[in-house]
Amino acid sequence: MDNLNQLCIHTITTKPWAIETAVQKYAEAGVKGISVWRDTLENRNIQRTGEFIRSHGLEVVSLVRGGFFAHTSALKRDASLSDNLKAIDEAAALGAPMVVLVCGADPGQTLEASREQIRTGIEAILPHAEACKVKLAIEPLHPMYAADRSAITTLAQANDLAEAIRSPWLGVAADVYHLWWDPGLEQEIRRCGANGHLFAYHICDWNVPTIDMLNDRGLMGEGCIRLKQIRQWVKEAGFSGYHEVEIFSNRLWAQDQDIFLQNIINAYLNHS
Amino acid sequence: MDNLNQLCIHTITTKPWAIETAVQKYAEAGVKGISVWRDTLENRNIQRTGEFIRSHGLEVVSLVRGGFFAHTSALKRDASLSDNLKAIDEAAALGAPMVVLVCGADPGQTLEASREQIRTGIEAILPHAEACKVKLAIEPLHPMYAADRSAITTLAQANDLAEAIRSPWLGVAADVYHLWWDPGLEQEIRRCGANGHLFAYHICDWNVPTIDMLNDRGLMGEGCIRLKQIRQWVKEAGFSGYHEVEIFSNRLWAQDQDIFLQNIINAYLNHS
Repeated sequence: MDNLNQLCIHTITTKPWAIETAVQKYAEAGVKGISVWRDTLENRNIQRTGEFIRSHGLEVVSLVRGGFFAHTSALKRDASLSDNLKAIDEAAALGAPMVVLVCGADPGQTLEASREQIRTGIEAILPHAEACKVKLAIEPLHPMYAADRSAITTLAQANDLAEAIRSPWLGVAADVYHLWWDPGLEQEIRRCGANGHLFAYHICDWNVPTIDMLNDRGLMGEGCIRLKQIRQWVKEAGFSGYHEVEIFSNRLWAQDQDIFLQNIINAYLNHS
Repeated sequence: MDNLNQLCIHTITTKPWAIETAVQKYAEAGVKGISVWRDTLENRNIQRTGEFIRSHGLEVVSLVRGGFFAHTSALKRDASLSDNLKAIDEAAALGAPMVVLVCGADPGQTLEASREQIRTGIEAILPHAEACKVKLAIEPLHPMYAADRSAITTLAQANDLAEAIRSPWLGVAADVYHLWWDPGLEQEIRRCGANGHLFAYHICDWNVPTIDMLNDRGLMGEGCIRLKQIRQWVKEAGFSGYHEVEIFSNRLWAQDQDIFLQNIINAYLNHS
């Protein structure tokens, strides 16, 4: 199963499974990495959950997710900082080397104001991340989420921000779902690769048509994203980390998850 | 009603009304411009419809829409060229000075291939547009439509294309719904203004949340778009044409359209 050496799955992808089930199933199927969503850790001892994952031969790739720094309310901004510090602590306890940041946006203010708060927020939590040896990955989201999820909508903006702050503990996460349409994608992948800022690579597909803005992502090969082309760019940029399958899909969550897991592996091998 | 001098409404905005009703209602309300969707001309004498519009004191601003040049199938590409020539003829018959182009995309090929076909298609129909004295406006669409509606997703790309082809008959249409998120928007509005390429300005709003990818646009003021800021950029770029209200909304189409028309006028005056 050498071909699965770079395959990682996000727990959200098989959302019906509790994390213990996901770990066992992924490991049995030969998957090597797992990215853990924070909701799966509720009512768990986080350190022991990390040990449970590693005892099954899986590597924790990232904790998902921190961020949401942008709010018109100063109280909410303070609360988001506390929550991000907590996420970093959780990552350290779990043994996750990285927290993925969905940076946030508040429709009550300009995108520029949200971006300024994002920068301030990252700068505020970065010392704690460094102290805990946890990396932070800025994930640009698709522009259809610009109103309320992320004022960072292109890899160029994420790269700009990472370069402006400049820390070995801060980089970017490139998710094909958010970025595939961008005419500057190849260039920006090369740019963050050259800077050592490309921390994560997320894959799935864009369904045609897409019937839900949030929960209608496709399995690799179902949609129109040129996955092999982007994989090639990422590889040429020097990235040798995991290819993380992150799919939100009401349709796929409704399927038998054992069959779905086999389909993920087949799709990873044949279409990405 | 001096303040309504730049107000134009797209027939699709009040979709429940036949064009004759829309013309009468818009004129009574003091609206000055109308952009005509081609479906409203079915079973009409187009030239007489143009005369009917002008006899009510309204100006035809544009015919909507041509385009859809990108297809893996050569037969479909040929059919799209024929349809675009027909759209230009319809615009000339109606007395519309411009056809808006939604450029198209085919998920079966790369975005680059679609863009090449878009360029070839525009070059093929441009001589006929010039002969008929009908301008063509490239409308970049939001990246959420990149898979199957438009491989042109930013104003920068539309400007690049217009500059590459270079004709006084080819320019761009800037629609806030598609472009508001773009960090390069101000710069690109200035660029097409300076080139004399800014042919049209479309307004509406981005609802938070947006519940449908196609038919959940907001009335100006309902959403998060900084309309007055963008209007200022457009004005500073030298644009003095109509502000065209183009809204697709299942919710607003279900309202009493007389009340909705008054709401459009109030929203135009207060929020755009």
